[in-house]
Amino acid sequence: MDQEAVGYIVLLVIITLMSVIQNAFFASKVEQESKNYAGKTFQRAGPSAFERVFTANQNCRDAYPTFLAVLWCAGLLCSQAAAAFAGLMYLFVRQKYFVGYMGERTQSTPGYIFGKRIIIFLFLMSVAGVFNYYLVLVFGSDFQIYIKTVTNTISPLLLIP
Amino acid sequence: MDQEAVGYIVLLVIITLMSVIQNAFFASKVEQESKNYAGKTFQRAGPSAFERVFTANQNCRDAYPTFLAVLWCAGLLCSQAAAAFAGLMYLFVRQKYFVGYMGERTQSTPGYIFGKRIIIFLFLMSVAGVFNYYLVLVFGSDFQIYIKTVTNTISPLLLIP
Amino acid sequence: MDQEAVGYIVLLVIITLMSVIQNAFFASKVEQESKNYAGKTFQRAGPSAFERVFTANQNCRDAYPTFLAVLWCAGLLCSQAAAAFAGLMYLFVRQKYFVGYMGERTQSTPGYIFGKRIIIFLFLMSVAGVFNYYLVLVFGSDFQIYIKTVTNTISPLLLIP
Repeated sequence: MDQEAVGYIVLLVIITLMSVIQNAFFASKVEQESKNYAGKTFQRAGPSAFERVFTANQNCRDAYPTFLAVLWCAGLLCSQAAAAFAGLMYLFVRQKYFVGYMGERTQSTPGYIFGKRIIIFLFLMSVAGVFNYYLVLVFGSDFQIYIKTVTNTISPLLLIP
Repeated sequence: MDQEAVGYIVLLVIITLMSVIQNAFFASKVEQESKNYAGKTFQRAGPSAFERVFTANQNCRDAYPTFLAVLWCAGLLCSQAAAAFAGLMYLFVRQKYFVGYMGERTQSTPGYIFGKRIIIFLFLMSVAGVFNYYLVLVFGSDFQIYIKTVTNTISPLLLIP
Repeated sequence: MDQEAVGYIVLLVIITLMSVIQNAFFASKVEQESKNYAGKTFQRAGPSAFERVFTANQNCRDAYPTFLAVLWCAGLLCSQAAAAFAGLMYLFVRQKYFVGYMGERTQSTPGYIFGKRIIIFLFLMSVAGVFNYYLVLVFGSDFQIYIKTVTNTISPLLLIP
């Protein structure tokens, strides 16, 4: 692809590559725990460390295609920078979720869904992008600059925990 | 991206966003059932409601990346409208599958695979698109209009149950 | 999309379609074994054939979105031919992994991760593509031709088992 076309996706590619590193980290944790698990034979009360890390990995994997889909849709149709920033936040949240899931053995595990707010933010960005396309088509007026400004302004709010 | 490039993908984006909403619905069902499940302590015969909804969600998640891949390949290389229509049908089939899986407790569950016909249709569309590219490259004759007409004509057949 | 734009992705589409066929093959194996499994009532020692094929399918599905992401990033930002070749290798490795997992019942199963080397290769290709983009932006010197030559030269090394 030419330089200009790459410019439209390069930030999204960087976030995707970072998520791939994180996936590899999760997978290596599962591999490691499954080896420890196979070596032990006695029964323990409660979910074992392997079951915890397996479930945490599973939940992250379940949400991964959804995340990639909204990340790329939001980045392509709306603002690339804001989408990449939200993607970065999602990776932090996912890391925290994974560590929290496999961390302490006594406290209750977090739920199935995580990073709800970020996914919703990316989803709304995509919807705004789609609406903008049809507004241009029908009325000929382009609101993309306003939408970009608004999303870039709102995106730092994702930092609030 | 500019307006013209967005026009090539906007319908696919809409279908993708709808599938994301459906994924969120599935995930919320799992979350809800897992909370109910944790509260109960007695054993029940047969698979519990949580196990059912978990398996249904798992099967849908397993097929999701495959669906997205053929949807986008078919939409980009062949006809966007027909691919989006088939994608919409797939979402309906998936909804029916999910509801059917967690619905009645006594009847047998449906199998692992669902929406076979739609995936095959999208797959054949992608193959037709790839073949068309090489035909243009080798013979210089473009059959894309004929392929689009054929796929647009065939796609309503997916409505037959 | 126009002919030229399709030319940038056609090999990646072909690999994606081949991976979809493989996914369908895996899914049909799971469906088949689950039917056999439901018919049998006696307990067996060790993991059953269904559990084996289910886990093998699960592990392949877990890695699938990651694979697609690095395949497309590497193909779009770096060299399409080398990425498609690596993708083809990955499909072979995956087939071997799946067959090996469900094959012999007595030997130990392979681990959770497979095709590590190919994923790393695709990942490094993507990183090289991203770096090249920023080099062009900052210094105005385009190393894409050198990167393509290097990756095309290295890619046959993936054939070494």
